[in-house]
Amino acid sequence: MNDYSRRALVADIGGTNFRLAITDIDRLTIEHFALLSTGDFTRPQDAIERYLKTVPFRPEMVALALAGPVDNDTARLTNRPWEFTKADIQAVTGAETVLLINDFEALALAVPTLTDYDLHEVKRGKLAKGHNRMVVGPGTGLGLSGLLWQNGEWLPIASEGGHMSFGARDAAELELVEAMDLKPGVVTAERLLSGAGLAALYNALAGGKTEPRDQFSAARITKAAIARQDPVAVRALDQFVIWLARFASDMALAFGARGGIYIGGGIAPNIIPALESPAFARAFSENHEVAGFFEDIPVWVIKDGADAELKGAALALARLAPSTAPVTLKA
Amino acid sequence: MNDYSRRALVADIGGTNFRLAITDIDRLTIEHFALLSTGDFTRPQDAIERYLKTVPFRPEMVALALAGPVDNDTARLTNRPWEFTKADIQAVTGAETVLLINDFEALALAVPTLTDYDLHEVKRGKLAKGHNRMVVGPGTGLGLSGLLWQNGEWLPIASEGGHMSFGARDAAELELVEAMDLKPGVVTAERLLSGAGLAALYNALAGGKTEPRDQFSAARITKAAIARQDPVAVRALDQFVIWLARFASDMALAFGARGGIYIGGGIAPNIIPALESPAFARAFSENHEVAGFFEDIPVWVIKDGADAELKGAALALARLAPSTAPVTLKA
Repeated sequence: MNDYSRRALVADIGGTNFRLAITDIDRLTIEHFALLSTGDFTRPQDAIERYLKTVPFRPEMVALALAGPVDNDTARLTNRPWEFTKADIQAVTGAETVLLINDFEALALAVPTLTDYDLHEVKRGKLAKGHNRMVVGPGTGLGLSGLLWQNGEWLPIASEGGHMSFGARDAAELELVEAMDLKPGVVTAERLLSGAGLAALYNALAGGKTEPRDQFSAARITKAAIARQDPVAVRALDQFVIWLARFASDMALAFGARGGIYIGGGIAPNIIPALESPAFARAFSENHEVAGFFEDIPVWVIKDGADAELKGAALALARLAPSTAPVTLKA
Repeated sequence: MNDYSRRALVADIGGTNFRLAITDIDRLTIEHFALLSTGDFTRPQDAIERYLKTVPFRPEMVALALAGPVDNDTARLTNRPWEFTKADIQAVTGAETVLLINDFEALALAVPTLTDYDLHEVKRGKLAKGHNRMVVGPGTGLGLSGLLWQNGEWLPIASEGGHMSFGARDAAELELVEAMDLKPGVVTAERLLSGAGLAALYNALAGGKTEPRDQFSAARITKAAIARQDPVAVRALDQFVIWLARFASDMALAFGARGGIYIGGGIAPNIIPALESPAFARAFSENHEVAGFFEDIPVWVIKDGADAELKGAALALARLAPSTAPVTLKA
């Protein structure tokens, strides 16, 4: 006989991908995994409804991690006009417990559970136990969160830092950002450090001569750059990686994240050689104002197959409904 | 008969001022207050030793808040070559318990205890209970910390964010920063948003014709600007306030600080009219990427007389040694 009381439906709703699974919230197993395209649905409820028809039972707990802010019982996707409430999800799932969480807050919760198998080290450092950590991730948008070690517990810091304003370091950089022809208003980190940002950067470096941007452009550019098939793509990715390194080091200072940087999101796993380059490490460590702060901080990429957002959503549920045998985490 | 067991020596060691007092760590009273100049001493121990001769007893607990990072039992001042350990302070005070804490982490701890009497509202907002808060403060350096509301408790986030890199928004700003003739390397937020930064900014706007900068320049510039006696000082303070507003709004996003911004440090209490200006509010709210995030966030200046760092140091001690009647804080 199976005990389904600790099983939950978990989902990770990004601007591009919609991942769903059934998990045991104590063991963090991933079963009945499904990968859907967010763009195929007009409401998250429709994707969840379709998925639930493919699994043999109805879980009583649901946790949705999503790329956008969560305020009380309402969630809003940043890069899609979706807004929904706990009650909306309860109506479609019949679940008693529904939890909504920002996807990078979920990632932060999952970080202490990730193993060497889930991570790829792109900049060496020394593991500093009991120090804060940070998660950053360019994808459809730019996600960010902190992880605070306090009183023997890891606490996630939900952040809107992807929307921070971006400033140029010198005239060449200022000219490049202006050539990117971004939408009006304050230039934010996300406008540069996202799939659309990489496409705009490529277009600017190509002299504005590329095809109309579509949602697959970033994937094409990273592929061509890593294969060294297109010199403009190589230049675009080089600049992208420098901006990402700078943003990561600035936010490491903000969160006091000596304990490590974790790069999640859709783009990082596809550009690992560029993140392992000396240019990334140099841009990450170039700020010498705080002696020795950066040298020892390790930087990892969270592999796509780690399903870290789904595990994080499960962990958030486990915190709500503690088991008699909870997962123990190391400092 | 007096009970001295809950009394402590607390100090706030900044780049310019060295404040000391005796406090009751449960009632947060400030007695035997002394204000010394940091520059008058070669070691913090000397200032503490001199102070202790003026009070009628030796407290068994000591908490030092200081402008610099604390790593385990070692503290380092950012803007002065001082490094000292708990043992150094124990040797001079004979205290059993010594606690070292970053001054802005102490400020964050004190924020929930501050009353209307301690604060001056410079930008109106709605008090959002149970949301994160943030403390920022230009002075000799640029301090920063977050305050996380989690599980019914306020937790401070020690930050090194004052050392984040600064980028220019447009060509005029880039030119101005270059004219400030800062020391080589990455331009950090602190190089602009500090007393030395304001002096360098004034000098740049005056065409490099001012007297050699000294430590009192910032005080002179702010006084002349607020009194509208010097048009260059007015322009310098206007630009300073815009950069401060931008940094504060960026860091509010980073920490998800919808609950309020508190401006501490030595400069803010002297420039309240400039912080109440529409230019500050406009620069603070100009990033419209996150709809409605900024409009409702109140911004306060922590008044000099609030002795907030000293109270924060006392609160940090109280957390180490909980009383039977602890202070209760509101969300």
